Amino acid sequence: MSLWDTPLFCKLAITTGTFKVECPKVTRPHMSQDAMIKRRRTRQIKVGGVRIGGGAPISIQSMTTSRTSDVAASVAEIRKLESAGCEIVRVAIRDSRDASAVKAIKSKVKIPVVCDIHFDHNLALACINAGADKIRLNPGNIRKREDVAAVIKAAKRARIPIRVGVNSGSAGGSTPNALVRAANRYIKIIEELDFRDIIVSLKASDVLSTVEAYKKMSVLCDYPLHLGVTAAGPYDSGIVKSSIGIGSLLMEGIGDTIRVSLTADPVEEVRAARRILSALDLRSFGPEIISCPTCGRCQVDLVKIVADVERKLSTVNCQLSTKRPLTIAIMGCEVNGPGEVEEADIGIAAGKGSGALFIKGRIVRRVKEKDFAKELIKELKKI
Amino acid sequence: MSLWDTPLFCKLAITTGTFKVECPKVTRPHMSQDAMIKRRRTRQIKVGGVRIGGGAPISIQSMTTSRTSDVAASVAEIRKLESAGCEIVRVAIRDSRDASAVKAIKSKVKIPVVCDIHFDHNLALACINAGADKIRLNPGNIRKREDVAAVIKAAKRARIPIRVGVNSGSAGGSTPNALVRAANRYIKIIEELDFRDIIVSLKASDVLSTVEAYKKMSVLCDYPLHLGVTAAGPYDSGIVKSSIGIGSLLMEGIGDTIRVSLTADPVEEVRAARRILSALDLRSFGPEIISCPTCGRCQVDLVKIVADVERKLSTVNCQLSTKRPLTIAIMGCEVNGPGEVEEADIGIAAGKGSGALFIKGRIVRRVKEKDFAKELIKELKKI
Repeated sequence: MSLWDTPLFCKLAITTGTFKVECPKVTRPHMSQDAMIKRRRTRQIKVGGVRIGGGAPISIQSMTTSRTSDVAASVAEIRKLESAGCEIVRVAIRDSRDASAVKAIKSKVKIPVVCDIHFDHNLALACINAGADKIRLNPGNIRKREDVAAVIKAAKRARIPIRVGVNSGSAGGSTPNALVRAANRYIKIIEELDFRDIIVSLKASDVLSTVEAYKKMSVLCDYPLHLGVTAAGPYDSGIVKSSIGIGSLLMEGIGDTIRVSLTADPVEEVRAARRILSALDLRSFGPEIISCPTCGRCQVDLVKIVADVERKLSTVNCQLSTKRPLTIAIMGCEVNGPGEVEEADIGIAAGKGSGALFIKGRIVRRVKEKDFAKELIKELKKI
Repeated sequence: MSLWDTPLFCKLAITTGTFKVECPKVTRPHMSQDAMIKRRRTRQIKVGGVRIGGGAPISIQSMTTSRTSDVAASVAEIRKLESAGCEIVRVAIRDSRDASAVKAIKSKVKIPVVCDIHFDHNLALACINAGADKIRLNPGNIRKREDVAAVIKAAKRARIPIRVGVNSGSAGGSTPNALVRAANRYIKIIEELDFRDIIVSLKASDVLSTVEAYKKMSVLCDYPLHLGVTAAGPYDSGIVKSSIGIGSLLMEGIGDTIRVSLTADPVEEVRAARRILSALDLRSFGPEIISCPTCGRCQVDLVKIVADVERKLSTVNCQLSTKRPLTIAIMGCEVNGPGEVEEADIGIAAGKGSGALFIKGRIVRRVKEKDFAKELIKELKKI
């Protein structure tokens, strides 16, 4: 049995007392077997009620930007992230005030809370006492063997995992080999303490080094991998870097939990993470819109119509998100319109000022341009 | 000599009378050899003054949305696209009025103009007469052998290439195999006419099928490949789908010219295409910003500062774009800040209300938070 033979299209529901991650079966009628992703086989690690690796759905993480000691602000931010679809949240622990806030934060939010520790291992001990669901250690700045041992001992007692989180900015070198070496040295220390509840990340600030580091690591261990491109930059370029880096690894079956890093509202990180997983049919979070870029053939205002459908969808998303992923095709002309619309669950192939509404490949009726969005949403609710 | 041994980091400048594509050498000091992309070896095809494949820089395409017969609107749109960095533009040809507008459009723009033909091969003939730089034919709707032969004969006489442009919406099946089969059948017809000035595209509306189709095609021919995910949808999800689809193929060395399809202003397609190529170090279009996502450690308003630097950069971009790519790191704290900033050409590692300005790895001076953007741009202009 190789590392790579876990079937991708898991149908799994992980339920805890308070939090649920659903992964409906995603298939497309036209998808051939060899286009599907085969996920790397890993051991399974539990972070609070969320399972990572070992066939579990790929979970979405983000991080708060508030000062952690400001409990009210942190809780408000985490609740916003939860609503957006964040499944694991990380908080920065700068000092003992931050560490002691963890207990209060944990009592007010549903998703597991990970504590991000640098420089001072005593902060990790304090967070474990406060009920942290996972500790992230940075091999670049907590190096003493006895300090690591103290944290591992406490984590073992609390039955929580450790993320060995290597970053190019603090690994003492940012080549893929340097990142992998830093992780492996640390993992060896932890394994010698008979601890294997480990998740690994190797984030560089450039895409090629990040991807190469994860690929190398993926064949050296069976620990789940937390994917991310670090310091990916502002929204538009950060989305591109994260999509390529995380997306191309996921396509190769590598990666068990993801965090998109953006210099932007963390809610955008969660949205982008969902879009990456949806684009690869790894998970589904509601209907997918297929729409053409428009060209000189298009005789309706497609950009406006699609934006309108997207906006209306966001309000009905909740009811739809647990069902099987639906595709909505909104196409501007007769070239690829009928073909894409026929393959979608529902769609409109537009002509001049009106279009043909299709449901499951059959024309149902003609609708006027101004009613496209309204009619699509109406029919979608019926499906 | 295999298909795959073209060195990536080409230093090439293609100059025509009016238009120039530059590809400065992109290297990172820490990049290991095996993280670099080795491009698939292809024959080289010329579209106007732009070379595609055979080691040429990967060119950026987009498509107008105006009615092509509206010359003024089309020219205005193409000029906007040129300014944004579009290197080849496509226009839709619906009828003979569109075809006859091509000559006037061509006389007023700098970049090569590709005519997009469906259903009626006579429109292709008219466009070739009007001076089109390339014809895109859709195997799904121009099928008759004698029609194809007439177009090929005219293209050969005019010395312009043909794109065999297969789309899932019109290929009679959207599995990767169906797309490849449709392309191969058409290529065979064209090759029998002793014509090899061919570029191939195989666009599906889902990422996995698109990537699989291109991978299959890449080993079956030596024609340059035009990459794209068709009907990728609205801006935010379209960017993600295109980045993963196009980006993961480029990482494997596949792809010679790219078009990002978005249901949005085509200028956004060009910007996204540039970001994809920059993210993979395949081309450079000005400084790259490395900035952290901020967290509870950050004591400056990094999102605002980075947006400010980005905005200011866009106005100085022109002078900087032909130089070697610079990296600007703007980091929020002491964890990865110093490391990333030291490796960048210029950067600021922020503390509370101020930060240390680094140039080429050395601290130059402290600057106040409110002056971060101004000081970075000032120093950048000096480099």
